[in-house]
Amino acid sequence: MKSYLREQHRSLPAYVPGTHDESDGVLRLNTNESPYRPSVEVLEAVAREIPRLNYYNDPDCTELRAAISRKEGVELDNVLAGNGSDQVLQLAFLAFAGPDCPIYLPDITYSYYDLFAALYQIPLHRIPLREDFTLCPADYSNAGGMIVFPNPNAPTGLALTRAEVAGILEANPDHVVLVDEAYVDFGGETVVPLIETYPNLLVVRTFSKSGSLAGLRLGYGIGCKQLIADLAKVRNAVDLYGVNRMAQASGVAICENWKYYEDNCRRIMDTRDLTAYALCEMGFTVLPSRGNFLFARPAGISAADLQGKLAERDIFVRHFSGPRTEDWLRITIGTAEDMAIFVDACKDILGAE
Amino acid sequence: MKSYLREQHRSLPAYVPGTHDESDGVLRLNTNESPYRPSVEVLEAVAREIPRLNYYNDPDCTELRAAISRKEGVELDNVLAGNGSDQVLQLAFLAFAGPDCPIYLPDITYSYYDLFAALYQIPLHRIPLREDFTLCPADYSNAGGMIVFPNPNAPTGLALTRAEVAGILEANPDHVVLVDEAYVDFGGETVVPLIETYPNLLVVRTFSKSGSLAGLRLGYGIGCKQLIADLAKVRNAVDLYGVNRMAQASGVAICENWKYYEDNCRRIMDTRDLTAYALCEMGFTVLPSRGNFLFARPAGISAADLQGKLAERDIFVRHFSGPRTEDWLRITIGTAEDMAIFVDACKDILGAE
Repeated sequence: MKSYLREQHRSLPAYVPGTHDESDGVLRLNTNESPYRPSVEVLEAVAREIPRLNYYNDPDCTELRAAISRKEGVELDNVLAGNGSDQVLQLAFLAFAGPDCPIYLPDITYSYYDLFAALYQIPLHRIPLREDFTLCPADYSNAGGMIVFPNPNAPTGLALTRAEVAGILEANPDHVVLVDEAYVDFGGETVVPLIETYPNLLVVRTFSKSGSLAGLRLGYGIGCKQLIADLAKVRNAVDLYGVNRMAQASGVAICENWKYYEDNCRRIMDTRDLTAYALCEMGFTVLPSRGNFLFARPAGISAADLQGKLAERDIFVRHFSGPRTEDWLRITIGTAEDMAIFVDACKDILGAE
Repeated sequence: MKSYLREQHRSLPAYVPGTHDESDGVLRLNTNESPYRPSVEVLEAVAREIPRLNYYNDPDCTELRAAISRKEGVELDNVLAGNGSDQVLQLAFLAFAGPDCPIYLPDITYSYYDLFAALYQIPLHRIPLREDFTLCPADYSNAGGMIVFPNPNAPTGLALTRAEVAGILEANPDHVVLVDEAYVDFGGETVVPLIETYPNLLVVRTFSKSGSLAGLRLGYGIGCKQLIADLAKVRNAVDLYGVNRMAQASGVAICENWKYYEDNCRRIMDTRDLTAYALCEMGFTVLPSRGNFLFARPAGISAADLQGKLAERDIFVRHFSGPRTEDWLRITIGTAEDMAIFVDACKDILGAE
């Protein structure tokens, strides 16, 4: 069958998400979702929107951006909302990079960046993390293009300090530095306070992790007003109404009731640290994570084997092939009960080896 | 303040949507929304999703696509879902056109096409509609690129027959022909039955108009399997999780309870035709619309003046500048009560002139 797809897109790679299986009894520790439901205020906000679903959402997301700006201590025009942080990331790639403006990023990081880059024909310079998976800020001095990294990084969970990020911003005044703070609420240090000092800083956030809202799609970018206006120009050309009514209303409710989410984050961090301890006791090597997941190397069994044996028990964790990551697993932190089941399953599998 | 925006995006035009004002007492006849709420099954579907908002949506939209395929009489792999039909349109522009592959479209049409094209540097060939605003299929014989038009067209409301569209498809085997059927449920003739005959046909649909779901963002594309697979490849690179949980669940409920929506469409068509009659009685020229709106030229007052005077009464209709459209207004059809208010206001304004 004839294909009309443009030549340049034919070799686009496919992103492989974690297995999507919502059956009862399945433990999904493979997509870094929150195990906690949104708060009751979100349910109320959603219910209020139901009778208005036949009306378009506010294209400017004004109430939502106002709520975010209050929560983050910035101004309305420092905020751009998107249909998930993936949309903000994609817009930033399109706005600030291109075939003649490459992107510099860690060799081990969120793999969806690769797809945006491939789509827009943006060359990628992959800068190896150190042997211990930490990011070396000096490696990003005077990069010849946009810089992108998550902080904390995924799937490692390791984080830079604000001062380290400031150094990267300082060393690259001519290019945008995108700091993807998807996991910052689990122990990272935000760089939002740097946006007025560094006009090249774009911070990207999501409600999908700490905000318990993965299924409704909501993310945002924070930067100086010029940067956000530039990004909005591109957004308005591509997807003016992209952020649906219920996501906007939910985002407001989440910002205004942030304590519930903070408490959940603390709970997840506690569970994470207990899980890390239990895995270390079993001989795993576990990186000190600042995310809602652990990056861990099992002992006495290969990572791929352990993933397979866990999957047989309907426990899904993430394994990334590739020479530096193939010995490791990324394990999302669920509730304390979820992680007890996971740890017991690991013990059982390792005991049988 | 320094801008980091790529040079090519700096002159991007802005899309000007209809005024967004949800205050009580405002009559919004300017964005072609449905005046009718979604059916009770949508409310139930949305409520069922609330406790699962912390989990990601199905990236493949399998249940939704199955429901759409049953409704449309096609197969699952003939359907691609998007975050509003705007996303499907944008993906199609990116997948099938480009700087070296222009787009042919009517001179008077949905103005958002211009923005996608500007963003992706796609040259546009604007083919003038006839003097009476009808589209001449012969003008699209052997176009040198992708062809895009809404059918029925917006803002005119005029439609081509399936046979006329088939002629355009036949004459352009080497390029994709995108038929935007946003308004087809209000009296147009769908070309979905042509997808197996013409592998170059992409039909785009939205739930925002006849589906009463503008605020939740849901649209889809229908085409032969190869075309849909190609489009999915691009979608997966840009926005894998784009269609939120509630939109997916609502779309299923709408497809399975389509009679409610059909009845609403019939009601809107009846109201439209009565409104057209009333406007003609006042001396307006009114095109025979197959959409949920009328394109009408007032008599005894300029279109811009009438729009302004209606706005003073909190009645919003759409006016498009430009030499061929500046004498006309696009009026969304609301409920019978809405349109009685609108007609009375027009009479009142014209009587006072």
